[in-house]
Order: sequence, then C-alpha cells, then structure tokens
Amino acid sequence: MADPAASKDLTIAEVRLTPILVADPPLLNTQGVHQPYTPRLIIEVVTEGGVTGLGETYGDTKYLDLARPLAGALLGRTVTDLNGLPALAAQVCGDSPAATGAHTVDAGGLRGVQTADKLRLSVLSGFEVACLDAWGRAAGLPVHALLGGKVRDQVEYSAYLFYRWAGHPGGRGARDDWGAALDPAGIVAQAHRFADTYGFTSFKLKGGVFEPAQEIAAIKALAAEFPGRPLRLDPNGAWSVPTSLRVAEELGDVLEYLEDPVSGTDRMAEVAAGTELPLATNMCVTTFDEIAEAFTRGAVQVVLSDHHYWGGLRNTRELAAVCRAFGVGLSMHSNTHLGISLAAMTQVAATVPDLDHACDSHYPWQTEDVLTERLTFRGGRLDVSDAPGLGVELDRDRLAVLHRRWLADDGTLLSRDDAAAMRLADPGWVTPAVPRW
Amino acid sequence: MADPAASKDLTIAEVRLTPILVADPPLLNTQGVHQPYTPRLIIEVVTEGGVTGLGETYGDTKYLDLARPLAGALLGRTVTDLNGLPALAAQVCGDSPAATGAHTVDAGGLRGVQTADKLRLSVLSGFEVACLDAWGRAAGLPVHALLGGKVRDQVEYSAYLFYRWAGHPGGRGARDDWGAALDPAGIVAQAHRFADTYGFTSFKLKGGVFEPAQEIAAIKALAAEFPGRPLRLDPNGAWSVPTSLRVAEELGDVLEYLEDPVSGTDRMAEVAAGTELPLATNMCVTTFDEIAEAFTRGAVQVVLSDHHYWGGLRNTRELAAVCRAFGVGLSMHSNTHLGISLAAMTQVAATVPDLDHACDSHYPWQTEDVLTERLTFRGGRLDVSDAPGLGVELDRDRLAVLHRRWLADDGTLLSRDDAAAMRLADPGWVTPAVPRW
Repeated sequence: MADPAASKDLTIAEVRLTPILVADPPLLNTQGVHQPYTPRLIIEVVTEGGVTGLGETYGDTKYLDLARPLAGALLGRTVTDLNGLPALAAQVCGDSPAATGAHTVDAGGLRGVQTADKLRLSVLSGFEVACLDAWGRAAGLPVHALLGGKVRDQVEYSAYLFYRWAGHPGGRGARDDWGAALDPAGIVAQAHRFADTYGFTSFKLKGGVFEPAQEIAAIKALAAEFPGRPLRLDPNGAWSVPTSLRVAEELGDVLEYLEDPVSGTDRMAEVAAGTELPLATNMCVTTFDEIAEAFTRGAVQVVLSDHHYWGGLRNTRELAAVCRAFGVGLSMHSNTHLGISLAAMTQVAATVPDLDHACDSHYPWQTEDVLTERLTFRGGRLDVSDAPGLGVELDRDRLAVLHRRWLADDGTLLSRDDAAAMRLADPGWVTPAVPRW
Repeated sequence: MADPAASKDLTIAEVRLTPILVADPPLLNTQGVHQPYTPRLIIEVVTEGGVTGLGETYGDTKYLDLARPLAGALLGRTVTDLNGLPALAAQVCGDSPAATGAHTVDAGGLRGVQTADKLRLSVLSGFEVACLDAWGRAAGLPVHALLGGKVRDQVEYSAYLFYRWAGHPGGRGARDDWGAALDPAGIVAQAHRFADTYGFTSFKLKGGVFEPAQEIAAIKALAAEFPGRPLRLDPNGAWSVPTSLRVAEELGDVLEYLEDPVSGTDRMAEVAAGTELPLATNMCVTTFDEIAEAFTRGAVQVVLSDHHYWGGLRNTRELAAVCRAFGVGLSMHSNTHLGISLAAMTQVAATVPDLDHACDSHYPWQTEDVLTERLTFRGGRLDVSDAPGLGVELDRDRLAVLHRRWLADDGTLLSRDDAAAMRLADPGWVTPAVPRW
C-alpha cells in the first residue's frame, strides 16, 4: 500500500505490551470501592522507521488475553491502516478466552452490559492510539492533525468528586493526604481543593454510594458554595425511575445534566420523558449498536464518549457526528487512566467542534504515571499539544517499576473488582442489585 | 501547529481556481435535458513545499462566487487543517451573493431543496479533496490512507443508463456515436454497450422522463435481458405516492432499490410504509440536518452519498457512520463530473467497510477530462490507487483548452440549466411541478 518508501517506514516492526499496576485511591461507587492498585496496559507500536507510538487501555486479564493476539497480528501492517482494525481484531480475537466467555462477562457493571465486542473495542482503542502516535511522530504532525486538525487550543475538564475513605481497608496500598469525604462538607472541601489546585470550574459527583437524600444534599451544598457552576451527579444506574424523577425535580435548577440515574434504555427513556433535565450516559449507549434505539426514543440528551469504549479516536469522532446529526450533546467520560490516555482524549476533544461540555477526568486521582512529565491542568484546562504524535514521552524506568508490581501481584489485583475490595471492609458486601434505591 | 518543518511544508502557498466547460451528451431527466457543455471548477492547492493537490466541484457561477473568497482564506493554513474548513467557509462566504440569495436558489432541483449551506458544502468539498491530495502527495501516502486505509482493492460501479437524444437541439455541441435511447429497446441496447465496454453488472436508469408505464417497461426489458442483475430506477421525485407504490409493486421483484420516487421526507415515508422495496435517496437526505427525521420515520433505506453534497471525503465517512448506526444502507450518487472527482469517490469508497451497493458513475458519459490518463473501468470496477494522493495527474493543456471554452461562452452555459436546454427543442417547456405523474 502507498508509496513503497513511506509505507515501509510506517510498517509495524514490533509491538510491546506492558501490563502494569498503578495506585488508585479508595474511591467509592455503587459497586464497592476502588482497589489500592488497578491494572493498565501500556502499548508500544514500533515502526520499521524506528518510531515508537504509545497507547494505553484497560489492563485486566480479560483485556490482556485479547491484546496479545492482536499485537501479533499487527506486525507487517502499516500504522495508517486503521479502518481494517475492527475486522482484524474480530478475526484474531475470535477464539480467545475473553471473546468466547471463558472469562465472566459481567452484565451490569459500571460501563453497562459487557460483551465480547465491547472488550475488543476497548483493546483495539489502545492500538489505534499507538498507531496514530507513531504516524504523527513519523510525519512530524500532532495526532489532532491526523484527525483533521484542532478547532480549539485548550480542552476544558471538570473536577471528578468522589465519596472516599482516607485509606484502603487493612492499610493496603499507598495513603494520600486527601482524607475521607463521606458527607456534603467532605465533598465541598474536596471540590475546593480541586478548584484551587487545578482551576476546575465544573464539578461531577460520583453518586450511587449513599441513599439519594444525602447525595442531593451534597449537590445542594456544592451549588451553594459554587453558585452558577455546572454540576453533575452520576449514580451509575443505581436508582429507580421514581427516585430519578424525584432527584431531577429537586436538583433540576442546579444540575448541568444527570448521568445514568437508571440502568438501561427503557428506564432512561421513562426518566427522560418525565423531566426537562438532560440525561447523560456512559452506560446505556456505549456502542454504535445501542444508539438508534436510545436516540429514537429520546432516552439520552448527552453521550459521554470514551475512546476506550468506542474503539479509538476516529470512532469517537464518528460518534460525535452521529450525535450532531441527532441533536444529542457530547461530553467525555473518564475512569482510572494515565497520561497517555489523557493526552489522547485531549487530542480528539480538540478536533470536535461541538464538544460543549467540560470532559470528565479521573487523572488528578492518579498520582502515578508512566510519562516523563505529567500533564498539568491550568484553569481547569489542558493545552492541546502541537508536538508530533500525542506529545508525551514514556518514562521507561517508571514503566519497569509499575510492571514489576504487576509481576509481583498474587493475582488478586490483576482484574479490577470493586466489590471484592469492599468486602475487606464489609465481609457481607454483595454487588447491589439495581435499582438500589 | 505541528512540527514547524512539517507544518511549513504543508502550508498553503497558492490556490488556483480554473472554471471549465466540458462536453455533456443530451441526457434527459425530469427537469429537461443536459446542455451541450457543463461547467466544472478545477481547484489546485499548492503548498510551501511545492506540492500541488487537485480538487473538483460544480463550476456554476453561484459556486464560483463562493469558491473565490474561500480560496483566498486558505492561504497560510495547512492542508491538514480540515475540521476548521466549515467555520472558515461560513465566515468568508457569509456575505457572498450566493450565500445571501442574490442568486436564485431553486427549491426542488435534482438534488433536492437547495440552501446556502448546501452550496457552501459543495464548494468546500473540492477544497477538502485538493488538501487531501496535496497532503498525500507530500507524505507519500494515498488519500485512502489519510482516511484510515482501504478495506478493499477495487470499487464497484453501476452503469448509469439515460434516455437520450442522438444529438443536442439545433446541432449544438459535440455529437457522439451512442444514438438515441427513447424506449425500452434503446435502453437495453445502451445497457449492453455499457456491459460490453466497461463490464458493469448492475444498472441504474434515470427515469422521470416518460410516463411511468414506459419506464416500468424499460426496467422489465432490462430484467429480462440481464436476469438477476441489480437494477435501479430514479425518477428524481417526479411521482405521486400512489404512482410510486404502483411502480414498487410492479418492479418489487427486480429492483435492488427505488430511488427518490417522490419528493420530500413526508412522501418518502409514506411510500416506505407501503412497500418492502428499499427506497434510496440523494434528494431528501443530502445534509446531516435532514438525517434525523428521515431515519426516525424510516423514510429511506439507502442513502446515496456524494462527497460534493456532504462536504468532502471525511464527511462522507461520517455519513457512513450515521447510516451504519441506524441500519441504513449506503451507496454513492454521481452526476456530471470528471476524473478528479471519480478518483476521490473511489478513494473514500475504498475505506467504507459497509458500502454494499455498487456506486453510481456518470463518468462514462464524460468523454472530455483534465487528466493525463483517464480512469478505466474493468469488470465494472475501478482499482483503488495506492499512489500518493488521489493518484491522478492534471493535463494542463487540456485544462487550458476547456478553460478557454469557458472564457468564450456568452453566458448561456455558465450555469447548468436543463430546462433552458429543453426549451430549444420544446419552446413551451417549463420545469414540471411534482408530482408529475
């Protein structure tokens, strides 16, 4: 394909996969609590021309099982050959344990119903980003240029507030200096620290942890403390339709949007029909197959895109096009990730004209990274890098340290399990059925 | 933006606009007949690095009026900066005669209701293609690679059959050796020549010219002569709902799809509700704004994309994504265009995984071109070029000849007007109101 010289330079000569464990604070959600370390996978795609591109995705065992055959299948292809990735992934991952269900595929986790397709797209996204990074570095162009160019110089992010403990159960893992946040005052204090440190001007609270009255009180406390600022509440589908409508009525005048109050498109459509408050989702619409029903029924007003879910930066742009055509807003979801993924999020967000909500970012909670230089929020924003590729560099020593931690683990942390972590504090804990309230 | 060196090389130093008149046979449609020459605009984007990219779009005066300010505004930008083009075009073309309606904007032509936005997107498409061609040439990559890579090595096209006269009224223009085709036997003979010469295996008939019974007879004659081959009929919205349903019933077992039998989404939805035959369109859905209503109401089952209409190759891919999400098929529309646009169509078509219908192509009717080497259909297909850019070269001598023809015109041919051409044969002709039958 292409000019032989250009093509040869961009041919993939090597793919390195490095699973790591990174520190994660004891953040609470409706399923349980974050474990002290969470697995991520760092992907390096090396071209014949000697350029290395970086990607990052989930590092749980079921993702690794898909990543390994895909890495092998990429050798000899070019980094520009991205439209063929889904078919290639379907082909080479088709008989992997994850794709065939040898791993349990949970049917109601924090990212909605999981399927083999969704796992594959999340794995694929890390390779797509690595290919774009390599291509950009080789061409001397930022990734945003490969996506058609930036339309803004900065991308706005929101503070991601969590109920949390001061430390992990049993003193496991690293301890930070944030302390506990288990009531409205604790959430307001956390918001102040986020605003002071990073300049965030919009705030999202991860809910579904306490009964709704307490979370309503927390949002009202934030609204009183930060009047006029965009606020969001996300109980991860933990509520019933009547509860959601009651919350929507109580918080309708202070929330920018309500995120996944209920589980599934049917219930989301019911809630949407009963309130003027926009509903956002990163649970009931996380694949292209789920769009038609949700949009036709008016079940969601804002899709929280996530390039890991949607299969990469180019698919994220296609999602944006679908949303635009249907008058559905776009924002960006985030969960535990490092700087490579944050750089990728920022590059694609810079190219979407109608991204009119601040993006979520979990990054401030991740004190460990594999970059030589951490990305820095200023005024709640990240500058869009114009350096070739993603504009970030890998710190190989840090990578090695975090990989050794992964190698040393006895197996309990190699797949994220918020319920298992919760059972260390509450032995009788089972993942709550929804609706929980 | 980007690495200074790469960015400088890709900076636009010059934009050349060359309007031309190209020969067009006396092809009939529901509005009238093609004029002997039709205007096209050839766009050359020259980078600081000395690379020239080619684009092509409509050359009518109302398009030229928009193209001129946009050409000026491109200087100093980079060819990768494509997401910013729509806003730029809206800004610089905002007060042009075409955008403000100083030119008549016809409300029911062959491409549906025309608006300033649609004109602007058509103009923009030519610049987008020229930028991609320049970028590809500079990078040593085919345009398809810049769009994420081809997923097929050949693109299938269909034969585009027209009712036609042997020559233009009054002996104007060039005369070809195709002769007249004004009845089923003439259409079948034309189809045979197309099949023999180019290997096409599917056939589209431009209808809306004769009363439906005659066009039904032509399709039945084609079905008898080419059993099992995909057939299409396109009356450009000339029919009523009852007529369309009658045609659908008569031809339901031989047509691949029925194209724009009626005008407007309301009528298309009515027809769609009454037949199992898929309805295709390049009239009621030609912009992203028109998608939601048509898809939600099930008014169309196949969108005939056209990168001129939709604002370029990247938007065509976004259209494909929207169609995919809603289970709507994708095919490709074509009207009078030259080899630059055919090369662009082929490059983007090669990248869309689910383009599962043969694309229309008007190209065989265009005996004049501005390329050093015409593109050649073999087995009804075009090979997807892997050469840098679009893989075509401009014949400057031919371009100059065709431009001199444009310069020499007295004004009657500078904007396509099929009704005016028809009046030379039928002085009382007025553009028929729809539904005509």
